[in-house]
Amino acid sequence: MALTGLMRRRQQGPVVNGTRLNRQLETFAQFGRTASGGLSRLAYSDADLEARDYVTTLMRTAGLEPTVDIAGNLIGRRAGTESLPPIMFGSHIDSVPEGGNFDGQVGSMGAIEVAHSLLDNEITLRHSIEVVIFQNEEGGKTGSRAMSGEVQPEELALVTRSGFTIREGVRRLGGDPDRLSEARRSKGEVAAYLELHIEQGAVLDRANIDIGVVEGIVGIKRWFVTFDGFANHAGTTPMDQRRDAMYAAARFTTMVRETVMSFDGRQVGTVGQVDVTPGAPNVIAGRVRLTLEIRDLSMDRIEEVFAAIQAKAEDIARDTDTEVSFEQYYVSRAAPTDERLRAIIERNATALGYSSMRLPSGAGHDAQSIALLAPVGMIFVPSVGGISHSPREFSRPADIERGANVLLRTVLALDD
Amino acid sequence: MALTGLMRRRQQGPVVNGTRLNRQLETFAQFGRTASGGLSRLAYSDADLEARDYVTTLMRTAGLEPTVDIAGNLIGRRAGTESLPPIMFGSHIDSVPEGGNFDGQVGSMGAIEVAHSLLDNEITLRHSIEVVIFQNEEGGKTGSRAMSGEVQPEELALVTRSGFTIREGVRRLGGDPDRLSEARRSKGEVAAYLELHIEQGAVLDRANIDIGVVEGIVGIKRWFVTFDGFANHAGTTPMDQRRDAMYAAARFTTMVRETVMSFDGRQVGTVGQVDVTPGAPNVIAGRVRLTLEIRDLSMDRIEEVFAAIQAKAEDIARDTDTEVSFEQYYVSRAAPTDERLRAIIERNATALGYSSMRLPSGAGHDAQSIALLAPVGMIFVPSVGGISHSPREFSRPADIERGANVLLRTVLALDD
Repeated sequence: MALTGLMRRRQQGPVVNGTRLNRQLETFAQFGRTASGGLSRLAYSDADLEARDYVTTLMRTAGLEPTVDIAGNLIGRRAGTESLPPIMFGSHIDSVPEGGNFDGQVGSMGAIEVAHSLLDNEITLRHSIEVVIFQNEEGGKTGSRAMSGEVQPEELALVTRSGFTIREGVRRLGGDPDRLSEARRSKGEVAAYLELHIEQGAVLDRANIDIGVVEGIVGIKRWFVTFDGFANHAGTTPMDQRRDAMYAAARFTTMVRETVMSFDGRQVGTVGQVDVTPGAPNVIAGRVRLTLEIRDLSMDRIEEVFAAIQAKAEDIARDTDTEVSFEQYYVSRAAPTDERLRAIIERNATALGYSSMRLPSGAGHDAQSIALLAPVGMIFVPSVGGISHSPREFSRPADIERGANVLLRTVLALDD
Repeated sequence: MALTGLMRRRQQGPVVNGTRLNRQLETFAQFGRTASGGLSRLAYSDADLEARDYVTTLMRTAGLEPTVDIAGNLIGRRAGTESLPPIMFGSHIDSVPEGGNFDGQVGSMGAIEVAHSLLDNEITLRHSIEVVIFQNEEGGKTGSRAMSGEVQPEELALVTRSGFTIREGVRRLGGDPDRLSEARRSKGEVAAYLELHIEQGAVLDRANIDIGVVEGIVGIKRWFVTFDGFANHAGTTPMDQRRDAMYAAARFTTMVRETVMSFDGRQVGTVGQVDVTPGAPNVIAGRVRLTLEIRDLSMDRIEEVFAAIQAKAEDIARDTDTEVSFEQYYVSRAAPTDERLRAIIERNATALGYSSMRLPSGAGHDAQSIALLAPVGMIFVPSVGGISHSPREFSRPADIERGANVLLRTVLALDD
């Protein structure tokens, strides 16, 4: 039987062992498995430690020499033939409480499979490779942020959802919290960082696209938005004499969506939390505090959207005889991926016969911190229905295999 | 010095002793006074009992014979010259926690002052008069509802804000909770009931009107309104793929106000409470539950407004890809006042040289229950700024005196 064009193209280079990869993903899901079939593998928990032991074994089998850096990141290294900065790729294996079996896991098992495939194909790269399992991604990206020097000393005292402080957690993983700064890597010390991950949205799934070429991790800003009116009796206060903070807040919430959508581009804006004072059925709200979150790849675009929202909020306040105030309480800088890496990922996806599209990552990833010290690239595979941080999270084995193949080819291309 | 026209008109009949009335109001505010200068005279509390003892003394001084009915209402009676059903007037002396010195107090002291003025002027009416201090108005109108036979046996077990159950409370006041039904009065047993009260809104104050002729106590209906969307990641879910329950609820809240105001009349509609699930800044709301309250003098109008809101809510749900449901959980029937009594109140206000206007009562009052067994009339005096249930509640002494004069003249007119 004649080979199809697709199969011929695939045979122009090595591919991963998809069966092995997906089997390993399945086996790996036992550490921290919950009754609902999902994962509760909280960073620093016993399940996390057991899973890391298993990963250590997998690394060795894949020809990697495992070590734990001073921050507690698990790193499997294989030396290259030349003295060049390492090509790094990996993800995380910790989960949120009642999370799924794919977030972080796909990129971690995918990275090990890439190393294993290089070994199978007797390929040694010019660059050393480092497969990194970053610690505590879900609880604040501690591992990757330690590598980029972003962890503040006071963070060490934070109690994570495992019950351990970060300080205790780092110790449990074999790191040393008092020497965290030694985990830092400087610009130029890493040739590139690549991360394979599930999309955690439904963009690829809905568009029926195999591979997402991530343009970057979006920046995030969050504000508390407070409308002050006057709390009054809902029976005795005529409609035209009300200073109803709830009504003002409702107009604001509607306006946020309309304003965010009035700009071209893929920025998102969300009002997700609301507190009403006094909050009784028979009392006109005196004060309503909302959260406003805006995300985009461009921090300038976030500011631009916010300025439009703020101006319209002032109009609403004037119109409703209320007062509005904004308090910014959170910011996370956008982290664009490297254009050269995007092009390589795209080219390799095409060479493998996969469809691809460019898209931003609305969720945060370890790649975000590593972007401060090296060019980064991210490869997304579809999440069915866009469901994530849930036991119902699912990515198809064939999609996972495609993602790992693109990762493998991108590593090879970078080595050239 | 020549008498003015106004003074001549006033001298055409007896008037109350305004100085005595306002002094007594001031003295009376000592029972349950709080640090903020307001009142915490919770029904059944020691402060309530002490205040009732004082009222008993005042009643005797005003020529009234005090008794406590089986429900714990304090009733001061003065016999008439003929065997006719009594003319009843009064209010309540219990307060909400951290309430004001005027709600209920003005009508209670005003009623005693009217009796005292009749005594001063050596007037004995054909009808007996009964000055009633209804018990536990603020905690559920227990006293007046017992008189109209509305109290359900299971209510007796309710713990009131004083810490006592209603059963214990009735006992503390000298009533008998096990014979509550004996407190019931039948239709025809009471000639009429009149209540003087502060407006608790700002309608009279803003319009600069002396006397409010109450058209009735509005009916109330309350619903839980639930919008179900889909909770999702606020970063990874594009704006056009959201099923955002918060956005739907915001449009609903805006629409409620617009719909209520689109009808002629004085109906009010309020969204005062909101619960968001999951309620996090970075998660699109999956479910939002609001309260909707509509009040009007006409129950038909309430239904009409609700039908319009419900229809528009369905449109919003369709438009936002959410589902909406309504659950009615509270209803209080409207209680119109007697047209003959309104006219008498109005005529007497005019005769005294006071400005007056008709208005509904958006708040509940004891008159509401007594309307089930007798014609009722209510006289409102202005609340400065419409503030009520607050230590900042205030009505001017001159306004209080005017209200008591109208009450006195209305009692006299009814006796004719």
